[in-house]
Amino acid sequence: MAAGRALRLLPLLAAAATVVLEPAAAVWPQPQVEGYPPGGGRCLLPPRRFRFAYAAGSAVGPGCAVLEAAFQRYWALLFAAARPTENEPSWGMPCTQLLVFVATPGCDGFPSLDSKESYKLSVLEGSLLLSADAVWGALRGLETFSQLVGRDENGTYYINKTEIVDFPRFPHRGLLLDTSRHYLPLRAILETLDVMAYNKFNVFHWHIVDDPSFPYESSTFPELSKQGAFNAMTHVYTASDVQTVIEYARLRGIRVIAEFDTPGHTLSWGPGAPGLLTPCYLGKDPSGTYGPINPILNSTYQFVTSLFQEVSAVFPDFFLHLGGDEVDFSCWKSNPKISAFMKEMGFGKDYKKLESFYIQRLLDIISSLGKGYIVWQEVFDNRVKVRPDTIIHVWKNSIPYMEEMANVTKAGYRALLSAPWYLNHISYGQDWMAAYQVEPLKFEGSPEQKDRVIGGEACMWGEYVDVTNLAPRLWPRAGAVAERLWSNVTVRDLQDAYVRLADFRCKLLGRGVQAQPLYIGYCENEFDSIPAERR
Amino acid sequence: MAAGRALRLLPLLAAAATVVLEPAAAVWPQPQVEGYPPGGGRCLLPPRRFRFAYAAGSAVGPGCAVLEAAFQRYWALLFAAARPTENEPSWGMPCTQLLVFVATPGCDGFPSLDSKESYKLSVLEGSLLLSADAVWGALRGLETFSQLVGRDENGTYYINKTEIVDFPRFPHRGLLLDTSRHYLPLRAILETLDVMAYNKFNVFHWHIVDDPSFPYESSTFPELSKQGAFNAMTHVYTASDVQTVIEYARLRGIRVIAEFDTPGHTLSWGPGAPGLLTPCYLGKDPSGTYGPINPILNSTYQFVTSLFQEVSAVFPDFFLHLGGDEVDFSCWKSNPKISAFMKEMGFGKDYKKLESFYIQRLLDIISSLGKGYIVWQEVFDNRVKVRPDTIIHVWKNSIPYMEEMANVTKAGYRALLSAPWYLNHISYGQDWMAAYQVEPLKFEGSPEQKDRVIGGEACMWGEYVDVTNLAPRLWPRAGAVAERLWSNVTVRDLQDAYVRLADFRCKLLGRGVQAQPLYIGYCENEFDSIPAERR
Repeated sequence: MAAGRALRLLPLLAAAATVVLEPAAAVWPQPQVEGYPPGGGRCLLPPRRFRFAYAAGSAVGPGCAVLEAAFQRYWALLFAAARPTENEPSWGMPCTQLLVFVATPGCDGFPSLDSKESYKLSVLEGSLLLSADAVWGALRGLETFSQLVGRDENGTYYINKTEIVDFPRFPHRGLLLDTSRHYLPLRAILETLDVMAYNKFNVFHWHIVDDPSFPYESSTFPELSKQGAFNAMTHVYTASDVQTVIEYARLRGIRVIAEFDTPGHTLSWGPGAPGLLTPCYLGKDPSGTYGPINPILNSTYQFVTSLFQEVSAVFPDFFLHLGGDEVDFSCWKSNPKISAFMKEMGFGKDYKKLESFYIQRLLDIISSLGKGYIVWQEVFDNRVKVRPDTIIHVWKNSIPYMEEMANVTKAGYRALLSAPWYLNHISYGQDWMAAYQVEPLKFEGSPEQKDRVIGGEACMWGEYVDVTNLAPRLWPRAGAVAERLWSNVTVRDLQDAYVRLADFRCKLLGRGVQAQPLYIGYCENEFDSIPAERR
Repeated sequence: MAAGRALRLLPLLAAAATVVLEPAAAVWPQPQVEGYPPGGGRCLLPPRRFRFAYAAGSAVGPGCAVLEAAFQRYWALLFAAARPTENEPSWGMPCTQLLVFVATPGCDGFPSLDSKESYKLSVLEGSLLLSADAVWGALRGLETFSQLVGRDENGTYYINKTEIVDFPRFPHRGLLLDTSRHYLPLRAILETLDVMAYNKFNVFHWHIVDDPSFPYESSTFPELSKQGAFNAMTHVYTASDVQTVIEYARLRGIRVIAEFDTPGHTLSWGPGAPGLLTPCYLGKDPSGTYGPINPILNSTYQFVTSLFQEVSAVFPDFFLHLGGDEVDFSCWKSNPKISAFMKEMGFGKDYKKLESFYIQRLLDIISSLGKGYIVWQEVFDNRVKVRPDTIIHVWKNSIPYMEEMANVTKAGYRALLSAPWYLNHISYGQDWMAAYQVEPLKFEGSPEQKDRVIGGEACMWGEYVDVTNLAPRLWPRAGAVAERLWSNVTVRDLQDAYVRLADFRCKLLGRGVQAQPLYIGYCENEFDSIPAERR
């Protein structure tokens, strides 16, 4: 039954699938530099006595919310399964604490594109030291530490001696979730943020509204969600929900970049914002349907200014994602007032000029609000005048995306890559491999151009995804993107990645993540939908 | 972002996605005959008083385990969400009981290929009557009844007047799970049986062992799982587990057909059954690897006889699935003793003859145990002499499967269709539609041939599927196969099916099933991983 065929096609991987790894052998994503001290050896961790603590001279110390919360999380992840009656190991070198040193102060701020995420982790004779420039790097190091801890056959916790110097290859490592095509409950978003942190992702791109629904509860325009959400009571994100997401993300070193995509992809805005969308015409009369935002009215820009004033205040990140993709011109073309405006403006029949007219005004509004912006590639393709520090998000596959990366960076703009990382697109088999093999800098261009690639994002669009299948579709597939964006350019071996990713996936199951299998095999602890603390 | 593209390709479906159905409007799979009494009207169900009861003259009554358990299940499914303080409806026609009439006695037996599953459900003025030939039909009718019950905006339970006469188009409507490539915990199998019953599936084809692992604990040969399971303690099905599955299935009118696939697909048998598998050779010496079961040794047939003696006793169904697919001849070809045997037997270089030699002896053993058998199509393709009542399972797509269906039935054998229903094969988009549009009898053949098609099976092979993604991959996609096998040949309208299946999927969420969405939209009650009774 076709079954067998796949087995024969992948003999190496089939063999690898049954390799039982030393739990401590692998870190995902692979650290930049890992050295093993001569002689080897390991350090035993006594669960009841083990503590995280601050090293002498650390610029942050007790009371630092980001680290205190992380210490609690990682202690629970590491030792929650330890039985309270567990004997402490009576032999070997014990390590009772991990000392954390942070060079620069700051615990209450938000991570940003410029945050330092580098860290150094030393596991030496009886001592564990994690040092980092900033708390954000300490978070990454804690994750690495947690993946290095194993349990031997007696249940004793240990960590092998090692010295890791680590830092991200790209500063923007994002994951997009779409909460408009299907509503995702708050819990699903928070759980995704947890697993993002395990993968060292640092940007949650929240594609929060779109054509099908408007779940964002706006304080300025409450009718938008009242009229535009699937259900205005149950399928919305309240102001409190949004704050919860932002703080939950901050505590994990993750930025939240909200996308309010205009002028297309706004059908759900219409009912709650009369006059905002373009009325489409059938011959001489309005057809009763609506198109993109109406770019010819002053009221449109008043609305957009007010909405983005609110959004800019709610979302602390410097960047907003403004969309700007896939504007369908047919409705604009049908509308006689738009035609008149086109003539008046001298745009001829070039509706791209009308689109640019809107985008230009939008960008000016956002700039005046003191925010930076990311836009989908059409804004660049259509030659809209943007600020030099604009980030262009490359998503199309109609032309080779590497040409677009070359063009965008040649024009001096920063680029974000998503085109090969649409993880909502699924196919039979190990499709994580294609995502893994992408090399974001493999295009013709100067070193300066390459420097303008700030990273990429895995996208999970919501046509066919909701809370029922989000986690297994995302994990561990998105891990392929996470490693590509974090690890060294030289880390590309598929067989090695397979073994480590399969192992990482087993770790995710142990953490209660519903991560699907890569291929035939098993994990010592399979997924259990009932969390450890409730069993 | 490509997102929008899909939306434009499916405008009709996009529109349908936001249709909010009257919960009571749809039944999945669609009943054969549904009549609405003139005048319409509805009957209100008071949750605290509502009871299932036996009609006068019913051949089964109190104490019938199959029905008593079903009454409890459906009462809980219908009314578990009712608040204990709920007011009874004070107006309208109340229906306080569903009377069940079963014409023929029998509560303790197992369902079989010949079981009668027809039923009639009448919802008339103040009276609810379900009548059936046998308890198995009563189970199907209870499921239909449960899908017809709705709740109005005040929370009042109701059912619209209707008269349904229903029966299955095909008697064998199966679902295959593969517990060898990944182990599925008992809980996952039981939950799948629940959802199978919601879909009126009636055969659980348990592909219990295969190359990667042997999780079946044999009392005769305990070493098979001790050596062949992924983990002999945690990744096995004990005798008690197997009995639990069989009884759980029986109570839902589902047959359990176990598959012990030979002579290929048996690598995991090797370690626990020394001498059973063929040693492969590299040149003149054994290579240390093994191939299919060794067909030239008497000890092989002694082993097979003992194992199937046990299996025949453990699994009560008349049929066993014997596999017989995808035998790889390369190992046999390498082995000098096999070559000598081939010569002695006059098989020349035709290894199909050797395969047939094995299968023929296997089938004789199974016949002598008083069991019937199902085999994969290769057994027929290779012209093995089989009993006239053999069922041939069509799975290959290398030639059009309809040719194979024609050939099998022309040769006088009964046929089961799975080729177009490999649900482990996934693709982007609404791939349930292809499964739905299959017509099993669309081949050239006489009416007698068509009569030999006893049904089909949806297959969920386990290369990429385990407990983390089983439910969302199965449901509601397998529902497409369920309706094709149950409903009338004329029920084929995709748009109508989309609306009903989307509605059914929302019902599944309400029952705690992690069923994935068909397309953009929402359900009033989204999936919550915490079951209602534990919330």
